[in-house]
Amino acid sequence: MILQHKEVLNQGAGSDMKHLLSMKDLDTDKIASLLEEAERISNGQVPELSEKFTAAYLFYEPSTRTKMSFEMAAHRLGVSLLNFVPEHSSTTKGESLYDTVKTLEAIGTDLVVIRHSEDQYYKDLTDRISIPLINAGDGKGEHPTQSLLDLLTIHQEFGKFNKLNIVICGDILHSRVARSNAYALSMLGANVYLSAPDIWQDQSLPYEYISMDEAVEISDVLMLLRVQHERHGSQMNWTIEEYHQLYGLTMEREQRMKHHSIVMHPAPVNRGVEIADELVECDRSRIFKQISNGVLMRMAILYRLLEKGAI
Amino acid sequence: MILQHKEVLNQGAGSDMKHLLSMKDLDTDKIASLLEEAERISNGQVPELSEKFTAAYLFYEPSTRTKMSFEMAAHRLGVSLLNFVPEHSSTTKGESLYDTVKTLEAIGTDLVVIRHSEDQYYKDLTDRISIPLINAGDGKGEHPTQSLLDLLTIHQEFGKFNKLNIVICGDILHSRVARSNAYALSMLGANVYLSAPDIWQDQSLPYEYISMDEAVEISDVLMLLRVQHERHGSQMNWTIEEYHQLYGLTMEREQRMKHHSIVMHPAPVNRGVEIADELVECDRSRIFKQISNGVLMRMAILYRLLEKGAI
Amino acid sequence: MILQHKEVLNQGAGSDMKHLLSMKDLDTDKIASLLEEAERISNGQVPELSEKFTAAYLFYEPSTRTKMSFEMAAHRLGVSLLNFVPEHSSTTKGESLYDTVKTLEAIGTDLVVIRHSEDQYYKDLTDRISIPLINAGDGKGEHPTQSLLDLLTIHQEFGKFNKLNIVICGDILHSRVARSNAYALSMLGANVYLSAPDIWQDQSLPYEYISMDEAVEISDVLMLLRVQHERHGSQMNWTIEEYHQLYGLTMEREQRMKHHSIVMHPAPVNRGVEIADELVECDRSRIFKQISNGVLMRMAILYRLLEKGAI
Repeated sequence: MILQHKEVLNQGAGSDMKHLLSMKDLDTDKIASLLEEAERISNGQVPELSEKFTAAYLFYEPSTRTKMSFEMAAHRLGVSLLNFVPEHSSTTKGESLYDTVKTLEAIGTDLVVIRHSEDQYYKDLTDRISIPLINAGDGKGEHPTQSLLDLLTIHQEFGKFNKLNIVICGDILHSRVARSNAYALSMLGANVYLSAPDIWQDQSLPYEYISMDEAVEISDVLMLLRVQHERHGSQMNWTIEEYHQLYGLTMEREQRMKHHSIVMHPAPVNRGVEIADELVECDRSRIFKQISNGVLMRMAILYRLLEKGAI
Repeated sequence: MILQHKEVLNQGAGSDMKHLLSMKDLDTDKIASLLEEAERISNGQVPELSEKFTAAYLFYEPSTRTKMSFEMAAHRLGVSLLNFVPEHSSTTKGESLYDTVKTLEAIGTDLVVIRHSEDQYYKDLTDRISIPLINAGDGKGEHPTQSLLDLLTIHQEFGKFNKLNIVICGDILHSRVARSNAYALSMLGANVYLSAPDIWQDQSLPYEYISMDEAVEISDVLMLLRVQHERHGSQMNWTIEEYHQLYGLTMEREQRMKHHSIVMHPAPVNRGVEIADELVECDRSRIFKQISNGVLMRMAILYRLLEKGAI
Repeated sequence: MILQHKEVLNQGAGSDMKHLLSMKDLDTDKIASLLEEAERISNGQVPELSEKFTAAYLFYEPSTRTKMSFEMAAHRLGVSLLNFVPEHSSTTKGESLYDTVKTLEAIGTDLVVIRHSEDQYYKDLTDRISIPLINAGDGKGEHPTQSLLDLLTIHQEFGKFNKLNIVICGDILHSRVARSNAYALSMLGANVYLSAPDIWQDQSLPYEYISMDEAVEISDVLMLLRVQHERHGSQMNWTIEEYHQLYGLTMEREQRMKHHSIVMHPAPVNRGVEIADELVECDRSRIFKQISNGVLMRMAILYRLLEKGAI
């Protein structure tokens, strides 16, 4: 077992999951099992698919990391990809997401990955399709594959989640990564804290807010989030430099972190805003490691859903 | 012979066709032969290509079904695809379609599939290129691969075309599918009727216009067309609800159809406009079956043109 | 040796080149070696890669020939491609080119090809990445793979470069092809001349300017450049017809060319502007031959960088 000492209790009997939509659907056994699968792949044990599968990736919002790493995962497993581009599709003629997915299913697509700006875009979809759907980000909802690759990164580092101090810092309110991770890490026994400017706090979440100065001192894992200038630049009543000093990981703050603690960020990073430029690739940064882990975790997920039909 | 009893006469000696441009170029023998090839593929007899071929799909107009199903057909035959995107190409610098195709030919592309907004865009092209061209839709002209997959769907259902009552309903004037299908079905012995609002009738076509109420009662096959809001929304002097009641397949009209008759639509479908939402996936709908058949028919066509050099 | 009689002197010891950025980095031995590799591929000796490699092509400017021929080269070598599209990537969220390339590296990409509007965009990049980068055009800088395929085309024709009269004609000032080619051909012993309207002359280049009428008479190779209407149409104080008569290869001028001399153009061609429409595919035109050679040369380059880690 990758989760030593059965450190967390299984949260449920764990019915088969045909889609991967939200971290809330995963119990600890399923998470442990995915981490083990990804670790095996990391050790060179790439699983073989028994058939020639074809997937389609529907990205209605921009992506570099998630889309490219899903593509690499498909290549490494030998999965063919249909090149679906929303702007060149019948979406421009008003076709619904449901009809698009049903069409891809009728064409013989074996699995779809979707990123969409609408929260829970998948709600009226999953009961009506017969192929697996992986959520690659829904509005301000969740981003479960990012969360799973983050868990892999933390587990590689500490070999456990129990009692780790994990602080998620930045724009909590609009972040789908924050939501998925806080929930999952807490379930896995970590002590989850949040740190955010007042306007970006989400008071509906059951976690304590602390200052950035406290955050750097107590954290084993400091998870930074991206300031989404493109979404709400006008709401920001700080200059970039002010934001960096008040809420960012400055050179000075990094000095006060514990010896063994690590820095994570889902990227893309705003260098000099939420993190000092020089720290993006510093010793305690796992930012590019997270990206590499994304391919392993997505291979594990694609393999499970295509070959086993469930996670 | 897939066409039982030689039900239709061969329309000509049938010289070799290097390109697939218009249904008018196909005689009944060629159609029968393509239907048989697609049926064999449907039964698991996927033909093997003797070489590693590469194709390029040039879609100058949006497409989900046609492009994705050509992609799937290529994957299943092991044909490599070049990822040509008009917006990122030298088309933006004014390069002509001819020079683009000649360039792809010089690069070693073995076949091109083109969708273009201009009627008969291929007219000055086909004599000057040495690789096969498949027309995936030319302006208001034709869409022969759609027509062939429709023929496959009808033949699967009835095992014949002769004496079937087939009514094509909707925007006849602007539909390339209507034109290709009316011609081909008529040649194959079917009784072809049209049904359309006055402003969308094309009086140059040699078929009788009937009302939608007659259409549902006499048809063995009711072929609905898409209302192209994006092209001529302003010409429409009905509300959507009025259009649906006057010219659409309503729940009520569907009740009056013959027991065995089927509903077809090239999609994307405007649910609640040309067809009631609930009927898109009803028992007599073959809409998603048509999409699946598209992959089979395009595999048959790609195979013939790449391996045999002719249809 | 493909360069007979050691016609040009080796310009340096030739340290291993991990990236292909500029023709200035290539000595004559390296050029000769690439020409030989491409010739072997042309003769059917396609080299086998020992691993399954994956590349990413980042085109921030439009391209048909270069991108499609790099794609074909990858297909023929069995290299997988990630489908990176700048407009759909995190570039739209402000991610830098460096962070994008580092991300692709972390994902496991083995090589990147980049076209970018900024001169020497690669300057702060190459020391900080561990995978090879091929420059597919930097602003008004260089376009080394185009230059190498041009060299291949000339060498196929004449078997040498020494003492050939080569005239590069047109918009010298804004052409990255002109710069790369003039430098390389001169190093290889050719007599390089330029011909351009006053406003498009670059006086910093150490080559003699001659008139178009002289150019057609003395040239063994007449290299035409594209008039980039989209970049500076308003600066042009000629009509298209005037430009053609003053500076283009007219039907009349072509008659005055030497029997054996050839016409080249990197394309896309403006038919009737820099060259008469009828001459694009005339006997002495090597324009489509250049395009075919592009695939061979890019296969040679990809093979060297992926398999040997250096050119």
